[in-house]
Amino acid sequence: MTAQATHAEMANAIRFLSMDAIEKAKSGHPGMPMGMADVATVLFSRFLKFDAKAPKWADRDRFVLSAGHGSMLLYSLGYLAGFEDLDIEQIKNFRQMGYRTAGHPEFGHVAIADTTTGPLGQGITNAVGFALAEKMQAARYGKEVVDHYTYVIAGDGCLMEGISQEAISMAGHWGLEKLIVLWDDNHICIDGDTAVSVSDDQLARFQASNWNVCRVDGHDAEAVAAAITAARKSPRPSLIACKTVIGYGAPTKAGSEKTHGAPLGAEEIAGARAKLNWPHAPFEIPAHVLNAWREAGSRGGAERAAWQSRLAAHPAKAEFERTNAGKLPESWKQTVSDFKKKVAAEAPKWATRKSSQEVLEALTAAIPEMIGGSADLTHSNLTITKSTKSVTPSDFSGRYIHYGVREHGMAAVMNGLALHGGFIPYGGTFLIFANYLWPALRMSAMMDQRVIYVLTHDSIGLGEDGPTHQPIETVAALRATPNVLVFRPCDPVETMEAYEAALENTTGPSVMALSRQNLPTLRTSHTEDNLTARGAYVLAEAKGKRQVTLLATGSEVSLAMDAQKLLADKGINAAVISMPCWELFERQPKEYRAAVLGEGTVRVAVEALGIFGWERWVGDNGAIIGMTGFGASAPAEKLYEHFGITASAVADAAMARL
Amino acid sequence: MTAQATHAEMANAIRFLSMDAIEKAKSGHPGMPMGMADVATVLFSRFLKFDAKAPKWADRDRFVLSAGHGSMLLYSLGYLAGFEDLDIEQIKNFRQMGYRTAGHPEFGHVAIADTTTGPLGQGITNAVGFALAEKMQAARYGKEVVDHYTYVIAGDGCLMEGISQEAISMAGHWGLEKLIVLWDDNHICIDGDTAVSVSDDQLARFQASNWNVCRVDGHDAEAVAAAITAARKSPRPSLIACKTVIGYGAPTKAGSEKTHGAPLGAEEIAGARAKLNWPHAPFEIPAHVLNAWREAGSRGGAERAAWQSRLAAHPAKAEFERTNAGKLPESWKQTVSDFKKKVAAEAPKWATRKSSQEVLEALTAAIPEMIGGSADLTHSNLTITKSTKSVTPSDFSGRYIHYGVREHGMAAVMNGLALHGGFIPYGGTFLIFANYLWPALRMSAMMDQRVIYVLTHDSIGLGEDGPTHQPIETVAALRATPNVLVFRPCDPVETMEAYEAALENTTGPSVMALSRQNLPTLRTSHTEDNLTARGAYVLAEAKGKRQVTLLATGSEVSLAMDAQKLLADKGINAAVISMPCWELFERQPKEYRAAVLGEGTVRVAVEALGIFGWERWVGDNGAIIGMTGFGASAPAEKLYEHFGITASAVADAAMARL
Repeated sequence: MTAQATHAEMANAIRFLSMDAIEKAKSGHPGMPMGMADVATVLFSRFLKFDAKAPKWADRDRFVLSAGHGSMLLYSLGYLAGFEDLDIEQIKNFRQMGYRTAGHPEFGHVAIADTTTGPLGQGITNAVGFALAEKMQAARYGKEVVDHYTYVIAGDGCLMEGISQEAISMAGHWGLEKLIVLWDDNHICIDGDTAVSVSDDQLARFQASNWNVCRVDGHDAEAVAAAITAARKSPRPSLIACKTVIGYGAPTKAGSEKTHGAPLGAEEIAGARAKLNWPHAPFEIPAHVLNAWREAGSRGGAERAAWQSRLAAHPAKAEFERTNAGKLPESWKQTVSDFKKKVAAEAPKWATRKSSQEVLEALTAAIPEMIGGSADLTHSNLTITKSTKSVTPSDFSGRYIHYGVREHGMAAVMNGLALHGGFIPYGGTFLIFANYLWPALRMSAMMDQRVIYVLTHDSIGLGEDGPTHQPIETVAALRATPNVLVFRPCDPVETMEAYEAALENTTGPSVMALSRQNLPTLRTSHTEDNLTARGAYVLAEAKGKRQVTLLATGSEVSLAMDAQKLLADKGINAAVISMPCWELFERQPKEYRAAVLGEGTVRVAVEALGIFGWERWVGDNGAIIGMTGFGASAPAEKLYEHFGITASAVADAAMARL
Repeated sequence: MTAQATHAEMANAIRFLSMDAIEKAKSGHPGMPMGMADVATVLFSRFLKFDAKAPKWADRDRFVLSAGHGSMLLYSLGYLAGFEDLDIEQIKNFRQMGYRTAGHPEFGHVAIADTTTGPLGQGITNAVGFALAEKMQAARYGKEVVDHYTYVIAGDGCLMEGISQEAISMAGHWGLEKLIVLWDDNHICIDGDTAVSVSDDQLARFQASNWNVCRVDGHDAEAVAAAITAARKSPRPSLIACKTVIGYGAPTKAGSEKTHGAPLGAEEIAGARAKLNWPHAPFEIPAHVLNAWREAGSRGGAERAAWQSRLAAHPAKAEFERTNAGKLPESWKQTVSDFKKKVAAEAPKWATRKSSQEVLEALTAAIPEMIGGSADLTHSNLTITKSTKSVTPSDFSGRYIHYGVREHGMAAVMNGLALHGGFIPYGGTFLIFANYLWPALRMSAMMDQRVIYVLTHDSIGLGEDGPTHQPIETVAALRATPNVLVFRPCDPVETMEAYEAALENTTGPSVMALSRQNLPTLRTSHTEDNLTARGAYVLAEAKGKRQVTLLATGSEVSLAMDAQKLLADKGINAAVISMPCWELFERQPKEYRAAVLGEGTVRVAVEALGIFGWERWVGDNGAIIGMTGFGASAPAEKLYEHFGITASAVADAAMARL
């Protein structure tokens, strides 16, 4: 009969897997896994509701390693607990090409990663999204199928990042009592003692945002367990400050930033083996320790089976499963078609933000899992609809989230909502403020999450608010980011088509760049086909053999139509190409692209944004009409005139090149 | 004899100038100027040390309207106090083309704006930079020439933005006791009552970061004055929560978000005239009120004269004036030359982050106003030098700032240091985390500030940390931003040249994109000429008539050199162009650019980053070797191989196009 594994043995298993894997990789961050091994062991072996055999169980507790550099903590936990995709070869090949055990935990690479972390502060904010999603789903389906905690391990870095304040403030406002943050309070940052840069009373700070807080010795397993037990009973989100020693067990480097981001070295690791009484070879875990861990990993099996039975009997089982699977309801395509027909016939003169509002009105009625919101610009972004009543701290059945002036937090919470499952989040701010949320948008893209960014006031066309609010580089930056669909529709038809494509884009985020100013409806002939989904298409072919190809997006498409007329007056045959989404256009067959771009014709692009990147489409003999510097504060028409973004400038540029 | 103006009259002058200018412009934000008119009147008429006739007086108190949408508050104050660039015509032409009174206050457009505000949270963080600069300058020159306060008006939006936490935390850590924040605590955000999105106890939050806090009725002038008096005596930074009514004086809309962002309308303004007993026509200020304001505006004249005398007698007057004027010391050019000579001769194999460290070692010794720092990556960014000892809460004579894990805050504080005068800030983080600081970097660019961003680990070449840390879109986004010089030097010579150009770029920020991995020195023949300042140049001309032009930056220049050899082996004549700065290359004469780019040759670009934007340089028959998606976690060499960024891929691409 084997011995019962002790807590210390279970924690040391994490420590040595981490030390040894990092040593073998000659790269990585041992300090955090060693420091937080005790806390993680308590959490995973006594509290976390999970089943290693069913890592995506919908009602599992979520676990977020916000301090993602401590990835070996997560991989060690995964291997030890028996997650099937994390065998010992994965641990031995930490940070190597072709293995799942990437430098930072990546959602989709290892099942145990509920989100991708590494950029600090993202994880804790995703966790707010998880906890919010849980409350919203519980409000819809009841506690019998949705009732889980969200646990976070966060470091000093996460708490120093500004986004953490947005997260803390939101969680406290909504009272997300099932969110529990375990702070690795080791008093060490990369530059040394945290005292070099921070003097905050973190507990007081969290309390100021209505959190439950406490402090424990992070190496005292029973104290940690008691704190987690208490936190689970609190009516408020909880911060547990776990006083730990970074690199716990390293004989000379423990407690120092030297353990943070580099292998410890053979000698130090040998010393740790002696100090922690761990005589086992690298990557060898004694059977009784591994068994204890595997028991922890299967602990949730019975609970999951009971949950499955409850779900089987649930009246809304089909809807629960449909929305968790990210599948859209049957009827929504009819909504798209009806809307397009109507606006093509009525040809309203709407700003595309207004078109977006009308589109969202229709889509949110048809797709109950769509969850709206805005970073305190609801009536500018026009993101609220009749179907989306506000979520409040006392009612989570709503579908609209007032994120406050927290663009970055909004984006990271939307990632959490999307990752949790069950919801399709969209959220608004001004396009320029994509720069406040960029790190989180990048995570949407890297994690293949269907998050829709509704970004209005999308050019100098916003007018008087001036250059601080006028995007110039923003759309180029978004287009340069992998796996983001950037839509800049020109009218209500294209706007609906853009949302249709965004909803069908289940493996990445989409951006809607929408005008403040009114624009004519240009697509007045209905097509069932989604032309926007082709990325670019011939909106108005030249009369006669095409000599000039005018490329435009959004608010400048109608300007290109005017330029086409000016050119026609001069006897020049120009086509107008609407180009609402470069990324989708790039996916079209070469022949289609060539036909649209009119090879051999003079191409002129126009966009009331920075010109960066347009060379791809206009070619060596082309011209680009747009912005080369910052904007100015004046009425929109004056600005277009002042910066030379006019139909006649487009026509002149074409003529100069013929 | 005219009547003495009352406080209420002085405040109402602000209210009506704001209401009327916004009404005439049909655009703007009246709520805040009306709500904060009392507080601003107390501050400007009783406390703020300034002289409207010398708005750039070095020892003036700084005033930051962090809630920049309330720009009419600032313009009203400027006009009333007698700033010469703000006459009544400017007020009447608020938000119009060609006038200084932009939608949001812009540094450089109106003398009263110590910084540009509008994007929320930037101003309060710039103010931390001002207050830090004051303490650092006082530590160098003494209180007889440097002794001023920094006042901020911030709204709920500023305090909701995450960057505000970084600001608060830094100010509390450093104990910036001359920083006083007046919070417009009106309980209104754009979506309505702030209770829709925030429940923080702000006073407790600031206290948790070691601030002095109090709450007053923001319409009680004496209470506000008493609070400011107390704050000036506090040994800690101060938050004064001013309970106000947004749109104070508007008969039906006061206290509502309806006053926030739109003109009030003629009827409402007429009602306000009645309610506030202001019978005067739009833009008419009674003489006694204007006189009182003009007295306030000239109040600081005597104090300034006394200060001028003290400065005249100061032993370091010349250095004080030189550094405030942003002029570099005489000798620094020799430092540049000596360094270039030495590294060209010794040809070390350094990562460019290491080259940067050596460059900074030399430059910080020669240029005492250079102030270093890092967002907690000092020993990765290699930004500290022997000349730059750390700034601490008890010693501000240092030159190195531990910003903590607060990239955004760092950038906005650097803006404050640069705007204050006297310092040239540089600060480090990983290149990928430019996305955390983007909004502040954009402000550096918009405000023409010489801020140097030292961004290391600049491509997939950082290796094992993986895709969360590998920039793909980052450099494209920076290149797309107006008025930013983006340098990606290839070796120590180019690195020094890049810093030389950055220091000479007195009207905008510069970015250094620097490698983690070692690279050979390629510039082994010394030139006094700064080739990097040309943006791009022929590093290695083709032997024989050039057929192929290889374009590369940074770590890929040596790879291009290898490709040149591979092509030579096939009898193909290729030149290697090092292209460390696109923006400077664009400023070169057309003939130079054509010669460098080798018109008529096949051009192949290589950069271990996203390919976005390179079409500008390679043209229709060119090729771009780079990244089209996110990276991966593995050793650097494996990644280059895996993603096909190799010398043979470059050579093959060239040959395929010949």
